[in-house]
Amino acid sequence: MAYSHFDVAVEDSVATVTFNRPEKRNSFTMAMCLELGDFFDRIDADDAVRVVILTGTGPAFCAGADLHEGFIGATELTPEQEAIVARVGTVDGVSRDPGGWLALKIARSLTPVIVAFNGAAVGIGVTMSLPADIRIAAESARFGFVFTRRGIVPEAASTWFLPRLVGIAQATEWVITGRLFDAQEALRGGLVSYVVPDDQLLAKARALAAEIVENTSSISVAAARRMLWHGLELSSPWYAHAAESHGMRAMAAAPDGHEGVLSFLEKRPARFPMSVADDLPDFVPEWPARPDDV
Amino acid sequence: MAYSHFDVAVEDSVATVTFNRPEKRNSFTMAMCLELGDFFDRIDADDAVRVVILTGTGPAFCAGADLHEGFIGATELTPEQEAIVARVGTVDGVSRDPGGWLALKIARSLTPVIVAFNGAAVGIGVTMSLPADIRIAAESARFGFVFTRRGIVPEAASTWFLPRLVGIAQATEWVITGRLFDAQEALRGGLVSYVVPDDQLLAKARALAAEIVENTSSISVAAARRMLWHGLELSSPWYAHAAESHGMRAMAAAPDGHEGVLSFLEKRPARFPMSVADDLPDFVPEWPARPDDV
Amino acid sequence: MAYSHFDVAVEDSVATVTFNRPEKRNSFTMAMCLELGDFFDRIDADDAVRVVILTGTGPAFCAGADLHEGFIGATELTPEQEAIVARVGTVDGVSRDPGGWLALKIARSLTPVIVAFNGAAVGIGVTMSLPADIRIAAESARFGFVFTRRGIVPEAASTWFLPRLVGIAQATEWVITGRLFDAQEALRGGLVSYVVPDDQLLAKARALAAEIVENTSSISVAAARRMLWHGLELSSPWYAHAAESHGMRAMAAAPDGHEGVLSFLEKRPARFPMSVADDLPDFVPEWPARPDDV
Repeated sequence: MAYSHFDVAVEDSVATVTFNRPEKRNSFTMAMCLELGDFFDRIDADDAVRVVILTGTGPAFCAGADLHEGFIGATELTPEQEAIVARVGTVDGVSRDPGGWLALKIARSLTPVIVAFNGAAVGIGVTMSLPADIRIAAESARFGFVFTRRGIVPEAASTWFLPRLVGIAQATEWVITGRLFDAQEALRGGLVSYVVPDDQLLAKARALAAEIVENTSSISVAAARRMLWHGLELSSPWYAHAAESHGMRAMAAAPDGHEGVLSFLEKRPARFPMSVADDLPDFVPEWPARPDDV
Repeated sequence: MAYSHFDVAVEDSVATVTFNRPEKRNSFTMAMCLELGDFFDRIDADDAVRVVILTGTGPAFCAGADLHEGFIGATELTPEQEAIVARVGTVDGVSRDPGGWLALKIARSLTPVIVAFNGAAVGIGVTMSLPADIRIAAESARFGFVFTRRGIVPEAASTWFLPRLVGIAQATEWVITGRLFDAQEALRGGLVSYVVPDDQLLAKARALAAEIVENTSSISVAAARRMLWHGLELSSPWYAHAAESHGMRAMAAAPDGHEGVLSFLEKRPARFPMSVADDLPDFVPEWPARPDDV
Repeated sequence: MAYSHFDVAVEDSVATVTFNRPEKRNSFTMAMCLELGDFFDRIDADDAVRVVILTGTGPAFCAGADLHEGFIGATELTPEQEAIVARVGTVDGVSRDPGGWLALKIARSLTPVIVAFNGAAVGIGVTMSLPADIRIAAESARFGFVFTRRGIVPEAASTWFLPRLVGIAQATEWVITGRLFDAQEALRGGLVSYVVPDDQLLAKARALAAEIVENTSSISVAAARRMLWHGLELSSPWYAHAAESHGMRAMAAAPDGHEGVLSFLEKRPARFPMSVADDLPDFVPEWPARPDDV
């Protein structure tokens, strides 16, 4: 997997994606968007990767959309941009926001995603992280939902994800002021789960990844990740109860469920045999499925 | 009310339910599930009980499903388990997850429920607490949503309740790692509202219960408890506004509403006359009502 | 704009509304409700006001409904109250709760609202603040959702707003106990975003307002405010993605979007030309729109 905007290194079942254009502050281009989409499409079919870590080189994680390219929604597009618009398609009659195209891919991932903010994460640099599973930050990281300061609106489906992640009050304050804030405020507000010294960022991300790789069933993780988001979308706990009843029945009778009980009773580490690529059960929800009316 | 898996003691309008199988770490069996369901059915019709406290004896609150019994969804069931499956019924064509059967009963309770975690709460030991009103923990309590480490999926409608209680980011981290965590982390993450020294756990639970018993209308509490959860389920604040308009009209004209105003103007404690068992008004939502399509 | 229950002062594009009946602890009357509704109707059409600050004089922000007036839902109304009931109208066949009538107006505001709690905020005194954008408190402020202590139910659409703002666990505890709590607890629970010494309350509110006035597009703020609440109401992130795609396309091609990019590239402060009163784009959601069935 060779890409122009980031490096990919796989070790101990963890794929680390490192944005590698520090001279551009890893700013988000249309080409980077498509490359990331391609990466997430591939990774779901690859059982050798259990966890993805997203991080960057240099002082920025991603300093937002490359404004020298302009916004994809603008009226005058280059031929290259037109081709990308055609690639991401339309929704409800308009060109899809590319950030949202990517965010929904990350949301659908069957592989859990840890974002390790090494530095500034602004605009799409932070909104693309919202569908990830765990966000952690280096002490020197900075954040900004700067859309109101650029005369535009929040994107990457962040008007759906952000209030669910940090609460509507915190979401509203960060968005309507558009101000920058530091890693400690991101921690207090619930945007990131841990803040660590800069030189310990990757070690912390890897330790979290190892916690998953060494102890859990990849089928259970893929299912649980989607079931929790899907649960937020359901209007009644009865629907979650029905879905879980199906899931519990399927997994209790499946090889991973058998191994879970057996390893517990035998007081030994579990070795789960099932494969996400080959054995994903039917009960795992297609989340977020595209509704008929968009 | 005599049960085999827990003791019930009623004092000062508070029923304390104490899991009493410390030698089994109060693990969750099908028999315990049915007994708890029976208890919550009875308590709603009993005006002598204003608050329920759930706690346990020994080092564990409830160490999860009794894996010597296996999961109820497994293919080979004992005749006793078959009988229980028949009792809890089916949802959407499959046997209902027993934990979810219990969780929805607790959610529907007209009596507020305080869970006092005296020790380890793992798997169903913690997920059954999510529909309760207030969770508090002893300093030595430990928690784990260990489903991904057993090759199964979260249950007890926790994919609906947990992300609403602690936020989707915290819910996802706890569930996909499946790791154990301590009481202080449970407090920071919003799973429990208070952590107290082990020997003050019951005193704190009783103080919270007394706050409710001594000051509030039982009708108002039963209504408000459901209205808040129901409010989370509604897609628009207009629906909540309509429901509250009905509720305010009904209660302002009812004996408890009259006493509320009068006691305030006369600067004396209120003595609310209405009974949940006999006087529950129509506006109180049937929450969570079973939707037609599950 | 002259009102009997509060003063309005406009300075630096910020309208400060100060409840001015300290001898009544700024208690909420039907007349005050209608005056506030009128104020919010007017302010949306006034481009000279970019932010509203709500605060009070004396030891209370608003000590709840004036119980000498009684609840509007009560059966015996004065002729003046009957007239107000006719003015706020009905929902789903009953008189609308006046607090909810006001709360939905604040929710619909195109102008962001900062509430600065100078003192006690009880009942409607706190629930009316929930649809505001930012809540801050003086150290000496006190709060109470006291409905269960008055034999009534929560109102002002708070069964929808409160669990979304502070989480269902905190909402339930505050509401079912009905107890008073201080500013630090309000901060920990997420009800307010900042607590400051009493004599710095207005300075802090003005600093937050200035952050918005000096840096942002008023169209972007009006749109983002509604899009975030609307996003919470949507069942799938796909709907948010569709709405944002429309919004990004519209704003990237509009004068404020052009100025946002240009000012960034030219490294100068932005001067956004568009007017909320005249130029509000079609993509901004009518939130909360009244559903057909209430």
